[in-house]
Formats: sequence, structure tokens, C-alpha cells
Amino acid sequence: MFTPSAAPPVLDITPLLKDPLAFAAALDLLESHIKAKHPTFDYIAGLDSRGFLFGPPLAQRLGVGFVLIRKKGKLPGPTASVSYTLEYGQAELEVQRDAVGPGQKVILIDDLLATGGTMRAACQLMEKLQAEVVECLVLVELSFLKGADLLKPFPLYSLLQYG
Amino acid sequence: MFTPSAAPPVLDITPLLKDPLAFAAALDLLESHIKAKHPTFDYIAGLDSRGFLFGPPLAQRLGVGFVLIRKKGKLPGPTASVSYTLEYGQAELEVQRDAVGPGQKVILIDDLLATGGTMRAACQLMEKLQAEVVECLVLVELSFLKGADLLKPFPLYSLLQYG
Repeated sequence: MFTPSAAPPVLDITPLLKDPLAFAAALDLLESHIKAKHPTFDYIAGLDSRGFLFGPPLAQRLGVGFVLIRKKGKLPGPTASVSYTLEYGQAELEVQRDAVGPGQKVILIDDLLATGGTMRAACQLMEKLQAEVVECLVLVELSFLKGADLLKPFPLYSLLQYG
Repeated sequence: MFTPSAAPPVLDITPLLKDPLAFAAALDLLESHIKAKHPTFDYIAGLDSRGFLFGPPLAQRLGVGFVLIRKKGKLPGPTASVSYTLEYGQAELEVQRDAVGPGQKVILIDDLLATGGTMRAACQLMEKLQAEVVECLVLVELSFLKGADLLKPFPLYSLLQYG
């Protein structure tokens, strides 16, 4: 039986960003998925810092605003925060208190889903502001780490599944 | 005589990203400037992490690739690095060794130019790989901190000057 290591493999997204046609193709796929599944929603929120690479161009294509979910201490003004556990300790995510409002529909984006802890914390952060997470998007899901299970009931969509 | 504080004011770019029309307008201005001034170039390189918000949508509009300049230890594979001094100590920027090649023309982007130390280090990093920095772009330049002087001979273009 193959028991994958707990440490995720090194997946390098930089070649995708360096090739404008490949990057456009990935954005096309994400855009088509969102248009088909979520005819109306309010914001795309991206996770610090590789979610910042994909969220803004996608938000521009879809005509919605982009919201920043950042590591602790990086955002000006009043923030809401959620603590979560990583394999190597505790971490904290923050969002500005007025970034999203009650009942607003938010799509979260990051490059990679590993154990899912960070994405789950981001979902909880949106819930704390009474916004609705309509879907979490990632380019690559490390399936063998079962992040999608940890994320439930928040729904996940991944362009690629690995392992 | 007004002596501005060395500490830059808190400038919050999140409202710009949250408003898709304002964000598009800022990208329009940057795109027009680049098209007028740099008919051909190879890459846009963005600084970790707020340069990641503006570089990818701009690179997509211009049909070029995006290169990541990151804080130490964040990029996979062989990297080149440059150390620089911040008011609170030393920092290091890295880029993948094969990110840009000799003679390639690169436009650097970040949200803000303060003292200019980080942007200068990014320019030196590009030079280390024998690429040519054709211009450094920022949305906001804190002019009273004289970052443009520190950056010389690398040219700076800023959408807004503050102070």
C-alpha cells in the first residue's frame, strides 16, 4: 500500500504565470466554471499570498471586486480574525471588518489545497462577517491529504487533483 | 518647515481592489503608459505580496508573462537573491534563477514606493540575472521619502505621488 508522505510535494506554479497563454487558459477554465455555477455573487476573496495571483484577474474578468484575506498584522483598519492550527503551530488569518457584509456571496480562491486548514479558516472568517461562502476554488488539490473533507460543508472546486 | 515623519502614512489599497471599475481604471492607466512607452518588453515582475495583486492582471492585458519576486525561502528550485537593509533590519528578495534571462526586458511592479529599498533590491536581482529593468511601476509614490532618488538610475513611474 502506498502511504503518501504528510509533506506535500513541491508544486511550482511559476511556469504557469510566466506563460501568458497558459495563464489565460487557467483563468478561462475558472471563469467558465464560475459563470456556469454562480450566475450572481458579490466578491472573490483571495488568500495571502498566492491567491492574490489568481483572484484579481479573475475578479476583473467577472466584473466583481476582490477582497484580501491576509496573514495577521498586514491589513490596515479594524479587522476580524480566525486562528487555526498548522502542522508547525498556530496561525491567524484576517480580513477587514467591512470587507464583506451579511448575506453577501463570496467565492474564495487560492492556488493549492493541501490539508485544507487555511482555506477552512478563510471560510470561517467569511462566516464571522455573516457572508456566505458559495465555493472555494483552487488550481491544484492534493487529494491524498483529504482537504476537501476538512473543508465540508464548504464546497470545493479544483482544476487539477493530485495524488 | 514641515518635516514629514519617517513612518509612511497608512495607505489602504483594498477599496481600489474591491471596486471593479476603479481597479479597471487603475489598470487602464498602467496599461496605456506601458503601451506608449515600452512597445516591446518581455515580462512584468511583481514584488511579494501586493505587487502580486496588480502584476498578473496587467501582464494578461499586455500578453506577457508574470514573474514572482519573493521574500526569502518562498520560491521552489534554484534561486538568486539580494539582501537589503530595512529600517528594522535586513531582508532578502529572491527570484528563480531561470525566471528571466540575459538581455530580457522587465517591468517591475509594486503597489507603493516608500524609501525605495525593496524596489532597488528587486532591480539588482534582475541585473544579477543580466536582465534589463526598463521601468519600475508603482500605484503610489511617497515622494517625501525620496525613493525615486535611491532607485536611480532605474526609472520610476508612479500613478500618484503623495507628500
